[in-house]
Amino acid sequence: MKRLLLISNSTLHGSGYLDHCAEELRRFLGPEVERVAFVPYALHDRAAYAAKVRARLERMGLAVTSLHEVADPRAAVLAAQAVFVGGGNTFRLLDVLHRERLIEPLRARVLAGMPYVGSSAGSNVACVTIQTTNDMPIVAPPTFAALDLVPFNLNPHYLDPDPSSRHMGETREQRITEFHEVCARPVLGLREGAMLRVEGERATLLGTTGARLFRRGRAPEEFVPPARLDDLLVPVD
Amino acid sequence: MKRLLLISNSTLHGSGYLDHCAEELRRFLGPEVERVAFVPYALHDRAAYAAKVRARLERMGLAVTSLHEVADPRAAVLAAQAVFVGGGNTFRLLDVLHRERLIEPLRARVLAGMPYVGSSAGSNVACVTIQTTNDMPIVAPPTFAALDLVPFNLNPHYLDPDPSSRHMGETREQRITEFHEVCARPVLGLREGAMLRVEGERATLLGTTGARLFRRGRAPEEFVPPARLDDLLVPVD
Repeated sequence: MKRLLLISNSTLHGSGYLDHCAEELRRFLGPEVERVAFVPYALHDRAAYAAKVRARLERMGLAVTSLHEVADPRAAVLAAQAVFVGGGNTFRLLDVLHRERLIEPLRARVLAGMPYVGSSAGSNVACVTIQTTNDMPIVAPPTFAALDLVPFNLNPHYLDPDPSSRHMGETREQRITEFHEVCARPVLGLREGAMLRVEGERATLLGTTGARLFRRGRAPEEFVPPARLDDLLVPVD
Repeated sequence: MKRLLLISNSTLHGSGYLDHCAEELRRFLGPEVERVAFVPYALHDRAAYAAKVRARLERMGLAVTSLHEVADPRAAVLAAQAVFVGGGNTFRLLDVLHRERLIEPLRARVLAGMPYVGSSAGSNVACVTIQTTNDMPIVAPPTFAALDLVPFNLNPHYLDPDPSSRHMGETREQRITEFHEVCARPVLGLREGAMLRVEGERATLLGTTGARLFRRGRAPEEFVPPARLDDLLVPVD
């Protein structure tokens, strides 16, 4: 059974790294998972990133193998008990996943049941494409096509419009509307503090802050945890 | 002489479309320009966009030819007195510029002296690449390489960090720092209300709100109009 935990953000205001989702993450992986393969490619300093993740996951009883530390990252993915794809810059992350030829082994393993945990950019790349990332296109991946583990797109760090703002740049909702001008796939705006757990045909919204679902041509829908969002797992042309 | 007016944003809070830069725009074009070629490709509804721009520029005594209305956009660029590239989604804009084979004629004409006015996405594409846009990658252009009319990158709608914010997504400055992890080109953060006029070897900051210049490995520099930024026109490896 396909199992994913897609987290909006790794650090919630006022708490430490992964604190707000640690319990959910540990429960999601289950007692049988003792070691996690960490994908550090979304940040420039992979060693520092791996050290931070290792320190945090060890407190949860999880050992960490960072893919940048092994000679053969593909083999590490194929052998992993579970994978955690960390946040950072989505373009950089996807570019390395393609260049290291990790898309196919990651996808195959997750479709075969290996648990996938993503945070922010790591949640973006679990989707069909990265077309709804918030990040700057600092590098050009060969394609925006990503792992395609779920048939929708995510917008992590979803931000509601600020009625008091004088800033005239597009709101997040306006940007998602622009996406729907060119693509019909639903977009789930996951607020900071929210996460989506996918298990087979079930999708459950977790966390504290809720999510906003955008479907082309429809008014946005608001969801409050622990809402079921199973319809999202049905592909839309 | 190469002449560009690169505007951060087309609409400033509390005023109408192009109001905050209309005087500067008219002065920049000069009395000899009577008709402007408008590039509407950054928005989905080109006809509505052209109608809005036409109504506004006609109030400034300027006739408008929108490239979506002509049979041969390349020929229209080659014959234009001046060009205005409107804002919207930078990825969509750049994608169409490449697909319609407009990069080369636009570049040739501007290097030969045709005045170029860009706003937001239209300012982004005047730069070497679109790697410092704020927009969502709703479509994948064949490359992020753009018109390369100036040897730096712009960040339009530049936003200062909000010290009271509880949002944990990257600040604009953090995103630009990520860009400098992969590329040494300077990035000029143009606040809403700011614009940069380039004339040959001279670059002058105009408008009201100032700009913040980011160079790799240096502390950001603050500039207040009418600052001269001629150093920006010297390419950095």
